[in-house]
Amino acid sequence: MTQKRQGLQTISFDQSPRIISSATIAGPKEASSNLGSYIDRLVTDSMVGEQTPEKAERKLLYQACQDALAKTKLTEKDIHLFIGGDLLNQIISSSYSARDLGIPFLGIYGACSSIVEGLGIGALIVDGSYANAVLVATSSHYQASERQFRYPIELNIQHKSSNQWTVTGAAAAVVSNQGEGPRITKATFGRVLDYGIKSPNDMGAAMAPAAADTLCRHFQDTNTSPGDYDLILTGDLGSIGQKLFVRLVKEAGHTLGTKHMDVGAYIYKPEQGAGAGGSGCACSALGILGYVIKEMYQGRYHRILAIATGALFSPVSYQQGDSIAGIAHGIVIEG
Amino acid sequence: MTQKRQGLQTISFDQSPRIISSATIAGPKEASSNLGSYIDRLVTDSMVGEQTPEKAERKLLYQACQDALAKTKLTEKDIHLFIGGDLLNQIISSSYSARDLGIPFLGIYGACSSIVEGLGIGALIVDGSYANAVLVATSSHYQASERQFRYPIELNIQHKSSNQWTVTGAAAAVVSNQGEGPRITKATFGRVLDYGIKSPNDMGAAMAPAAADTLCRHFQDTNTSPGDYDLILTGDLGSIGQKLFVRLVKEAGHTLGTKHMDVGAYIYKPEQGAGAGGSGCACSALGILGYVIKEMYQGRYHRILAIATGALFSPVSYQQGDSIAGIAHGIVIEG
Repeated sequence: MTQKRQGLQTISFDQSPRIISSATIAGPKEASSNLGSYIDRLVTDSMVGEQTPEKAERKLLYQACQDALAKTKLTEKDIHLFIGGDLLNQIISSSYSARDLGIPFLGIYGACSSIVEGLGIGALIVDGSYANAVLVATSSHYQASERQFRYPIELNIQHKSSNQWTVTGAAAAVVSNQGEGPRITKATFGRVLDYGIKSPNDMGAAMAPAAADTLCRHFQDTNTSPGDYDLILTGDLGSIGQKLFVRLVKEAGHTLGTKHMDVGAYIYKPEQGAGAGGSGCACSALGILGYVIKEMYQGRYHRILAIATGALFSPVSYQQGDSIAGIAHGIVIEG
Repeated sequence: MTQKRQGLQTISFDQSPRIISSATIAGPKEASSNLGSYIDRLVTDSMVGEQTPEKAERKLLYQACQDALAKTKLTEKDIHLFIGGDLLNQIISSSYSARDLGIPFLGIYGACSSIVEGLGIGALIVDGSYANAVLVATSSHYQASERQFRYPIELNIQHKSSNQWTVTGAAAAVVSNQGEGPRITKATFGRVLDYGIKSPNDMGAAMAPAAADTLCRHFQDTNTSPGDYDLILTGDLGSIGQKLFVRLVKEAGHTLGTKHMDVGAYIYKPEQGAGAGGSGCACSALGILGYVIKEMYQGRYHRILAIATGALFSPVSYQQGDSIAGIAHGIVIEG
C-alpha cells in the first residue's frame, strides 16, 4: 500500500475510484449558455411543473440522481451511500432526494464547493473499500437562492455588476471501484479563509483566497505545478474573483496562464446579463460533471485539477456583521 | 484485512480508531439537568458575553474544540481534518469555528444526528489511514434554534407538551489512530424515512422510524441483539418519540428493556419544563461525549451502540406542506 497522505492536506487514492457515470440537468438560461451543449438534460421550464422553486430544485436533483444511475447497471440497492448537499437551509433538496432514493445518506454542506467535497469523500470511501459504489449529487436554483440569500425576484431588485447568478441545475455522479471512467486520484480538502469581505454581492472575492490557498497547498503537497495539468478548473469565482485568485496564485509563484478556467466566469455569455458570472452548487458541478468529463471522453483533457469554491455565510451572519469566509476543495481527475 | 462492510449498511473498522479526547460545554439549564455532572465546562450565561445567540453558539463550539485539543498533546496543526455541523442555516457555527481553528474542514449536515455522522466519517477516515487525527464537533443553542425553526423567544409563544427543548451546548472529540481511549468499531449510516409527520412540534415522532430502521439494520448486519450491548443510546427522540421507537423495534422482534436510554427523554428533569425532552445537535453529543464516555471510563459500560437522530426539514419546507423526514446514524463504541 502506498502512502495515502501527501504533504499537509492532500490525500492520494491508490485504488483509484472511478466516476463510472455522471448526469447533468439545467434550466433554460443554462441551455443557452456556453455550457449548454455539455448538459445532458435541459428543461424549458425552470419550475419543472412545481409550485415553488425549492420543490423545483429538489426535482432537478432527484432527476440527476436517477439519470446517473440509469447510465450504469446499478440500482439504488447497489449504491451503498448517497452523499449530497445544497445551498438551501437544512439542505432540504438533498435530504428529500435521499428520502426518495432510499439510499443511506450522508448530508454535507460546503456551499458551492459541495460537489468536490462530496466527490472527495466519496472517492475516499470507495478507495478504502468502505463502499463499492456511492452516489454524489448537488443542485442549486436561481429563484430559491435569490429569495433565501438576497431578495425574492418578485421585488425586481437591481443586480450589482459584481453579483453572480445562481445556476439552476443539478449534477450527480456514481463513484465506484468497479466499472470504467475517469479516475479520482487525489483530494485536497481546504481550510476556511476570511479576508474580511462583507458583501454578499461580491462572493467571488470572498472565495478567491481559499481557492488560491488550496491550489498552492496542492502544488506543494504533490510537488506539481500548472504544467502537470491539462486544466485547472475553479468553481464559481466569477470574473472579479478569478482576477484576485490569479493574482494571489501568481504572488505565490505560480503562473496559470491558459491552463486556468473558472466555470463561474465562463458559463454565461456576456449578453445573458449574469453580472460577474455564475454561482451556486450547480455551477462547479456542471463544469466538472458536464464540461470536464465530456471533454475527457473526447480526449481533450487527460489530467485535470478541479477546485470548487464555497462562500460560508448565512443571511443571519451577514446581518450580524460577520464577514464572508471562503472554502475550496480540490480533486484530481485523470482520464 | 478483514471485511470492511457487514450486511447492507454497516461498516466495520479493523484499525479501530479511538476517541482519544472529548470535551463538552453547556449552559445553565443543562447544568441543573440530569447530565449536569457529566459536562466538563458549564457556563452561567447562555449568551457567553455575546450579543446574539448565533454568536454565542459559535463560541461554545469553538471552546469545545479547544478543550478537546487541550486534553491531547496535539495542536491544530496535528489535526488533519475538522468535521463539523450544526442546525443553523448554512452551518455557520461550524464554518466560522473552522475558520478560527485553521484546520481543513468538511462541513456536514445531519440535523441532530450530526455528532454520529461526524464520528462515523471521522472514524472511517482515520481507519483508512487518510488522516492520523480528526476533530469532530457539533453544537446547538436554544435561542438560536427557537428563532430559526419556530419563533423568537421574545414572543413568549406557549410551548406544546410535545415540543422538545433545544439543548444549549457543544461537544468535540479527537479521533485518532494513536493514543488511548474508547474505540469506534462500527458505523451504520442510516436511510431517510418519512412517516408523514408534519408538525415541527412533534419531531420525536418524525425521527422514531429512522431510529428503529437503523437499529434493526444494525442488528441484522452485525448479527447482534440488545444483549450484545451494555447500552443502546438514542439521541433526542424525547418521551413521545421514544415510545414509538420502542414499539417499532418491538414489532421488528427486538425487546430493548432497560438496555435503552434516550438522551432527549433523560436529560431534563420533569420540573425543568422541557416538554417532551431535549433536542438539538448538542443533545446526542452531550449524551455520547459526556455521559457515555465518562461512564465507560468508570467501567460501567464496555460496549455501547449510539444512535443519533435528526429531523430533516426547514421552516420553508414546513410552510410548503412537506412532511418531516427523519434520519439516524449509529456507531458502536467499545471501552
